[in-house]
Amino acid sequence: MSRRTDKVLLRRVRDGESALVSDELAAEEPLSIRLDGILVATTMRTPGHDFELAAGFCFCEGLLAGAPVLRCRYCGAGRPVDSDFNVVDVETGGRAPRPTPRLGLTTSACGVCGSTTISQLCERLAPVTGLEPTPDLLATVATEVRARQTLFEATGGVHAAAAFAADGSVSVLREDVGRHNAVDKVVGALLFDGALPMHGHGLYVSGRASFELVQKAWSAGFSLLVAVSAPSALAVRTATAAGLTLAGFARGRDVNVYTP
Amino acid sequence: MSRRTDKVLLRRVRDGESALVSDELAAEEPLSIRLDGILVATTMRTPGHDFELAAGFCFCEGLLAGAPVLRCRYCGAGRPVDSDFNVVDVETGGRAPRPTPRLGLTTSACGVCGSTTISQLCERLAPVTGLEPTPDLLATVATEVRARQTLFEATGGVHAAAAFAADGSVSVLREDVGRHNAVDKVVGALLFDGALPMHGHGLYVSGRASFELVQKAWSAGFSLLVAVSAPSALAVRTATAAGLTLAGFARGRDVNVYTP
Repeated sequence: MSRRTDKVLLRRVRDGESALVSDELAAEEPLSIRLDGILVATTMRTPGHDFELAAGFCFCEGLLAGAPVLRCRYCGAGRPVDSDFNVVDVETGGRAPRPTPRLGLTTSACGVCGSTTISQLCERLAPVTGLEPTPDLLATVATEVRARQTLFEATGGVHAAAAFAADGSVSVLREDVGRHNAVDKVVGALLFDGALPMHGHGLYVSGRASFELVQKAWSAGFSLLVAVSAPSALAVRTATAAGLTLAGFARGRDVNVYTP
Repeated sequence: MSRRTDKVLLRRVRDGESALVSDELAAEEPLSIRLDGILVATTMRTPGHDFELAAGFCFCEGLLAGAPVLRCRYCGAGRPVDSDFNVVDVETGGRAPRPTPRLGLTTSACGVCGSTTISQLCERLAPVTGLEPTPDLLATVATEVRARQTLFEATGGVHAAAAFAADGSVSVLREDVGRHNAVDKVVGALLFDGALPMHGHGLYVSGRASFELVQKAWSAGFSLLVAVSAPSALAVRTATAAGLTLAGFARGRDVNVYTP
């Protein structure tokens, strides 16, 4: 199994002085995700929690459509070759609909836009009820998340996503070079735990809040998405359509709340 | 044409006090990129410089394979509908190879891994010669970049990428909610200017350095990639294979240099 970090030798320049030092960097490897044997995505991710990532991705993209995940497996598991651990098959025994192209080579109809995208989500997903990000809640979550960001502590180069309850206690935290992957890993873990939907719970992300992160949070039924940095305008419109509370620039007890 | 920012009303909580304020957020809209009429990717991007983004993406992915870009056009240009500006066709008159699936529904062979990925790039791309990131160079670039990050200044929620010369002068800077998009826009602009390959020049990115950013920098022939945050381990291995100098944690005159 690939490791989550690699040691490297680097030249560190501080105040004009240069020194050779060794440091840890986050590992990044491609992961191909298959659903019932059909490739649906390839993502660059930090190895670890790959089944959660693969299942969480399929869930958040609506590819499972309610079908249960019967099994996840590595393509070549059993043989001790690293690259065998870079292809994961999510198996529903054919109960999930056959995946249709998302980024494939079909000709796209004109008319793709943010509003269309939101409308499609509204057809697939039920509205959620918001959760107020009080200063106490934010401070508790931030403290707990920071204490558990072990990969970030080692490398300074990964994002974190975490699920938390209304009292601020963190149930699942995952780290990855990609913040979308970190969220998929959290959702996959919750899916395996039978914990979805996460009504009344919040999702914390260490970076900005894009449309896709709101989509993932909404898919998992979260009531609140807290981002450390800025949301995009489309993220706010999507969260508003979902009924999801969207908070950005969460720093200690301070925050911006973008949805009613 | 879609705007690059949206005004929103938000609730700002500071020191326990809540106030309604208005603020600007970065716009985020899907862009479907076609090469000679065939959809090759859909990306969530900040509108603006869409032709550069589309052409730069095709170039960096090796899809052009040396073919000249004859024209870029919006799918429905001419009609005043926003969504018509979310599909761009990059036209080479059929001189580029017909695109093959990247994330499509083909079954993937086992064996995908970082080393394979690097080998594939080595087959396609010539090695480059590195450029030393001296403290003076870094300080000059950082100052110039910061002064030109107008969208970041307004929103706090976008990444920047910038091409710079060995004296630190910035020739092209682009901003986007996605840092990969920002780099594609820079490379597209340089392609349109006939400035590629960028031997002896550097590329600055405001976030972390992933494998894909190194791939893009290498594709465009840059000698140096400077990232404000951490590189991944695969980014370092890829830059080493390319001969590209990779610098991370660039803050003022301080920096970590990861390649010989």
